[in-house]
Amino acid sequence: MNERKGDLTMKEYLEQVRKTVPLVHNITNYVTVNDVANIILACGGSPIMSDEAEDVEDITSICGGLNINIGTLHKTSIEGMFRAGKRANELGHPVLLDPVGAGASSLRTNTALNLMKELELTVIRGNISEIKTLALGGGTTRGVDADVADAVTEENLDKSVKFVKQFASETGSIIAVTGAIDLVANADTCYVIRNGRLEMGKITGTGCQLSGMMTAYLVANPEHLLEAAAASVCAMGLAGEMGFERMQEGDGNSTYRNRIIDAIYNLRGEELERGAKYELR
Amino acid sequence: MNERKGDLTMKEYLEQVRKTVPLVHNITNYVTVNDVANIILACGGSPIMSDEAEDVEDITSICGGLNINIGTLHKTSIEGMFRAGKRANELGHPVLLDPVGAGASSLRTNTALNLMKELELTVIRGNISEIKTLALGGGTTRGVDADVADAVTEENLDKSVKFVKQFASETGSIIAVTGAIDLVANADTCYVIRNGRLEMGKITGTGCQLSGMMTAYLVANPEHLLEAAAASVCAMGLAGEMGFERMQEGDGNSTYRNRIIDAIYNLRGEELERGAKYELR
Amino acid sequence: MNERKGDLTMKEYLEQVRKTVPLVHNITNYVTVNDVANIILACGGSPIMSDEAEDVEDITSICGGLNINIGTLHKTSIEGMFRAGKRANELGHPVLLDPVGAGASSLRTNTALNLMKELELTVIRGNISEIKTLALGGGTTRGVDADVADAVTEENLDKSVKFVKQFASETGSIIAVTGAIDLVANADTCYVIRNGRLEMGKITGTGCQLSGMMTAYLVANPEHLLEAAAASVCAMGLAGEMGFERMQEGDGNSTYRNRIIDAIYNLRGEELERGAKYELR
Repeated sequence: MNERKGDLTMKEYLEQVRKTVPLVHNITNYVTVNDVANIILACGGSPIMSDEAEDVEDITSICGGLNINIGTLHKTSIEGMFRAGKRANELGHPVLLDPVGAGASSLRTNTALNLMKELELTVIRGNISEIKTLALGGGTTRGVDADVADAVTEENLDKSVKFVKQFASETGSIIAVTGAIDLVANADTCYVIRNGRLEMGKITGTGCQLSGMMTAYLVANPEHLLEAAAASVCAMGLAGEMGFERMQEGDGNSTYRNRIIDAIYNLRGEELERGAKYELR
Repeated sequence: MNERKGDLTMKEYLEQVRKTVPLVHNITNYVTVNDVANIILACGGSPIMSDEAEDVEDITSICGGLNINIGTLHKTSIEGMFRAGKRANELGHPVLLDPVGAGASSLRTNTALNLMKELELTVIRGNISEIKTLALGGGTTRGVDADVADAVTEENLDKSVKFVKQFASETGSIIAVTGAIDLVANADTCYVIRNGRLEMGKITGTGCQLSGMMTAYLVANPEHLLEAAAASVCAMGLAGEMGFERMQEGDGNSTYRNRIIDAIYNLRGEELERGAKYELR
Repeated sequence: MNERKGDLTMKEYLEQVRKTVPLVHNITNYVTVNDVANIILACGGSPIMSDEAEDVEDITSICGGLNINIGTLHKTSIEGMFRAGKRANELGHPVLLDPVGAGASSLRTNTALNLMKELELTVIRGNISEIKTLALGGGTTRGVDADVADAVTEENLDKSVKFVKQFASETGSIIAVTGAIDLVANADTCYVIRNGRLEMGKITGTGCQLSGMMTAYLVANPEHLLEAAAASVCAMGLAGEMGFERMQEGDGNSTYRNRIIDAIYNLRGEELERGAKYELR
C-alpha cells in the first residue's frame, strides 16, 4: 500500500503545517471547541474562534482558512457561517464543512445543504450518515440507499468508494468520510485509510478535532488539497493508535483524549510517513 | 446497609446503560459541556447537545431522555428548554432539571420555577441551596428555614430526609440532593448515599456531569427510575473515590477530573454493587 | 531581584486567596471557559459564569469581582459586559478586562475601547499587540509604533516599561502585558516578571486562565491590587515551570494544560515566594 500520489510525501504535508503555522478560523460547536483549539495548536497551526456575524468577516480575513462545524447551531451563528464563508471564498481560502448531525434535525440538514449551495466548499468531512444525508438531499423524504447507509466495510468498499467519488464529482468538493475505514476522495481518486482505533468513538469530538486540524493542513498545502486532507486523516488515526499505546490501567476516555492531542503535538513527519496506512482507489 | 430495593441490583442498573446505549439530549451550560459529553460516553450512553429553539424538538425526538441544565442561561436557550421539555413529555421521555444557581439570580430562580410548572420533571437534581430555593418558591421573599438551609449532615439527616420526601411529594418528581451526604427520594423512599470525596467540589461541573449520566441511567431503566437515579449517584461518588486513589504527587483538580471520568469509563457492575454505600429511609 | 513592594509578600497574596475564597464572576469565551473555572477553583477561588444581560447584574452582585474576556464576543454578551461592569463599579468590585483579539477585528477593538470608556477597569491584561491596539486607539488608522509593537525583550525593556506605565497613567488601570517577559504596572511602578515557559503558548487559553485567577487575587487583596496582580502572574508562570518539570515522554500540550492547573492547585505560598522571579522598575 501507501502508493505515492502528488509530488510531496505525508511527511512533507505535516511539516508544511509546522513550517507555515496556518491561522484557522473556526465557527464550531461549544461542546468540543477547546479540544479543537488545542489540536490545531498541537499540529502546528493557530486557531481563532469567532461566530458572531459582525465579527467573522474581519476574523476570516486575517486567517488562512475556515472550518465550519454545525454541531450546536444557533440562528445567529448560522448567519456568521454564511458571511464568513463568502468572505473566505472571495479570498480564495480553503473552507471545510463538518455537517455534525445532518439528518438528525431539519435545521441541521437544511443549514448544511444551504451552505453547500451558497459556498464553495473545499472539503466536506463527516461520518457516513451525515454524508449520505447530504448526498441524498435530506434523506427522510427521498429514502435511503441501504448499501450506502451502512458503515464503510471491506465488503462494501467498492460501492462506498464509488459513492464518495460520485458525490465529490457532483459537489466539486473533496469528500472525507471517517469511520472504521476512512475515505478521502475527489472525483478521480480515493484514499482508503485504515489508521485509528474504535475506542476513539468513545471520546466526544474526535471528528471535530480532525476537521480543525484538516483545515490547517489544507491551508499549509494549497497545491495538494486532496493529499493534505488525507494526510491529516492518517495523522489523526495514527495519533489514536499512538495515544492508545500509552494508556495505563485505569485510564479511560478522558485521558485518551489528552493522549491523542499529545500524540499530535509530538508527531514527527517520519512517524506519519511510516505509520500512515492507506491505499489509492 | 445497602438494602435491596426494586427487583434489580445496582450492578444491573449500570449494565442496562451499557447494553442499551441511551441517547441523551442535553441543553446545558457551555462551562462543563465537554465533560458532560465525555462522562455520558464513559458510562455507556451517547450525548447530543442542542439548545437552539428551532432545533431541539427534532433532536429530542430521536433521543431517549432530556437533561436540562440552567448553568449559563440565555434567553434563546430558555425557549429551547421549554420546547424540548414539552416534546420530551409528549414522548414519555424522562426529563431531568439541574437548577444550577437557582437562588443566585432572579432569572435562574424564575426559569427553574417555570420549568417545574410547565413540565413534568422526572428528576430535579441540585445542591441543597438550589433545591431549597425551589421548595420555598424563591427563598428571598419567603424566608429560609435554617434547618433545611444547612448542608445535609448526620445531625439533621432525619429532617433533611423528611424535607426531600415532602418536596418529592409536592412536585411528583424524584428529588436528588447532592453534597457530602446525597439524598435521592420520591415521596415514600429516600436513598441516603455516602459515596464520594470532598475534593470533587474543587472540580468544576461534577454536578453537571452527574446530571448527564443520571439521565442516561433513567433512560436505560424506565421501570426503576428512583433506583437508577440512586445508582448513578453511587457511581459518581464511587468514581470520585476510585479516581482519587489513582492520584499521584503533584496531581490536582484538573487531573482529578480526568481520573473520575476514566473511572466511570472502567466501572464494572460488580464494583458498583460492592462499592455503593447507601441505606434506605 | 525580588525586591519587596507593599507590606505583604507574594506568599501572603496567594494565601489571602485560599483564606477568603473569592467569588469571581466571569463573562468569558466558550473556548477556554472550563479551564478558567478549574484554575479559579485550583487557586482557591470560586467561579461563576454568566453572560446573559438579564442575569449578570444579579450574579455580579453576589460576587467579589468581575472578569470580562472578549474572546468570543456575541452581541448579547456585549450588553451583558456593560451591565455587569457598571454594577460591579457601583459596588466597588475589581473589574478586569482581557481584550482577546483586540486589533484583529473592528468589533473586538471597538468593544474593548468602549468598555474602557464606560467602565472603571482595575486591570487590563493582554498580550503586547492587544495592549498596543488599545493604547493607540485602534492601531490601523493611527499607525503602529514599531518599537512598541515588538514583543517585550531585554533590548527594548526600558521603552516597554515606559510605554506600559504611560498607558497605566492615561487609563488609571493597572496594565498587565504577558509574554516571554511580563510587565505589570501602574503609573509609578512596573513589575518585570521572568517566570513561565514558551511552551505555554502552545496551550489554548493560558492567558484567559491567568485573567480569571488574577481577578481572584484582586478580590482577595483589595489593599494591594498591583502587587496581587503581579503575584498572580508569577504564580501562573511558576506553575508553567513546575508543570513542565512533570512532563513525561510522549506528553504534549493537552497534558501540559492539566499539569499547569494541577500546579496551581498544589502551589504553596512558600513556593511562590521562592520561585517568583521579578524586579521592580
